[in-house]
Amino acid sequence: MRILIVGATGTIGRAVVGELGGRHELVTAGRSSGDLRLDITDGHSIRSMYERAGAIDAVVCVAGKVKFGPLAQMTAADYEIGLKDKLMGQVNLVLIGQDFLDDGGSFTLTTGVLDHDPIRQGSSASMVNGAVNAFVLAAAIELQRGQRINAVSPGVIAEAMAGYAPFFRGFEPVPAARAALAYARSVEGAQTGQVYRVL
Amino acid sequence: MRILIVGATGTIGRAVVGELGGRHELVTAGRSSGDLRLDITDGHSIRSMYERAGAIDAVVCVAGKVKFGPLAQMTAADYEIGLKDKLMGQVNLVLIGQDFLDDGGSFTLTTGVLDHDPIRQGSSASMVNGAVNAFVLAAAIELQRGQRINAVSPGVIAEAMAGYAPFFRGFEPVPAARAALAYARSVEGAQTGQVYRVL
Repeated sequence: MRILIVGATGTIGRAVVGELGGRHELVTAGRSSGDLRLDITDGHSIRSMYERAGAIDAVVCVAGKVKFGPLAQMTAADYEIGLKDKLMGQVNLVLIGQDFLDDGGSFTLTTGVLDHDPIRQGSSASMVNGAVNAFVLAAAIELQRGQRINAVSPGVIAEAMAGYAPFFRGFEPVPAARAALAYARSVEGAQTGQVYRVL
Repeated sequence: MRILIVGATGTIGRAVVGELGGRHELVTAGRSSGDLRLDITDGHSIRSMYERAGAIDAVVCVAGKVKFGPLAQMTAADYEIGLKDKLMGQVNLVLIGQDFLDDGGSFTLTTGVLDHDPIRQGSSASMVNGAVNAFVLAAAIELQRGQRINAVSPGVIAEAMAGYAPFFRGFEPVPAARAALAYARSVEGAQTGQVYRVL
């Protein structure tokens, strides 16, 4: 397969490259590195990336940011960051990408454990993850030409724990290589409309 | 209790008024009717409503719109309608309202069955409902002064079925009065961070 990986140089992205790279041709994309550059908050940038990418059998997105902050201080503008980036950035990769992706191709998006297991300061991440999970369920029944879509919802990633530990006390860290397996299940399996939890 | 009901003249809103009105003092709010007028997509309008509402023990929101349309035709702008209205409208009622709501007061937001059971043309509704459900889980652990928050996720409402039936074939309609019970559980019960499904 020829697989487009958006956010290939992030902590999970590198593990996904490691998992899939031995068996498939990878095209990497990112804001500041990779074969193709894009800004996932900009639909024109996404379209331009697909036009340059050529034929693609699978799209994996491991990019997307949200703002963390105490509920009492979060404003609508703070939530807007996650809505534009991790939510609509990923959704636009699907909306625009469905015309470029080959028949039977798959989209794999990324959410996270906060979708059902909240932490302090994480209300925007929870919101966005819940939104992406539900979008995936819904998009799966409408995609055409045998295209599939799933989400991977990993726990806090072990390799990133140094920066996040104070917020995730008691959460069992997930090695990025374990999370990467779920992306392989989505890309190389046949299911659609699934949220693969790696906890 | 003194209960603020946003969207009191909608199909569910009227049933909530019927359920709670006999036991409590209700303050109704809406875009074009009610004791107080507001535009839930406008934070200034929400703040102004709370300033006029006086002391409030519970906020119930049964307002919020989303755009329905085929996935293949939906654009980012179409999703933006639901993100601004049913998602951030309800979230802003909480963000701004937490400073106005009495100690121990509750917020009750509205999602719907598409959060986990999708239909064609419903991807925006699924997205928004999933986002609100997850926000509720997360906000519940950060609200202060004993404030609580829950969501009610009803099935397709029987009284509204005439307009929606072609999209919801095989879904068992839920009488609005049954859905209204879940709002009473949220407002008059003691739980927080719950999604009450009425199916």
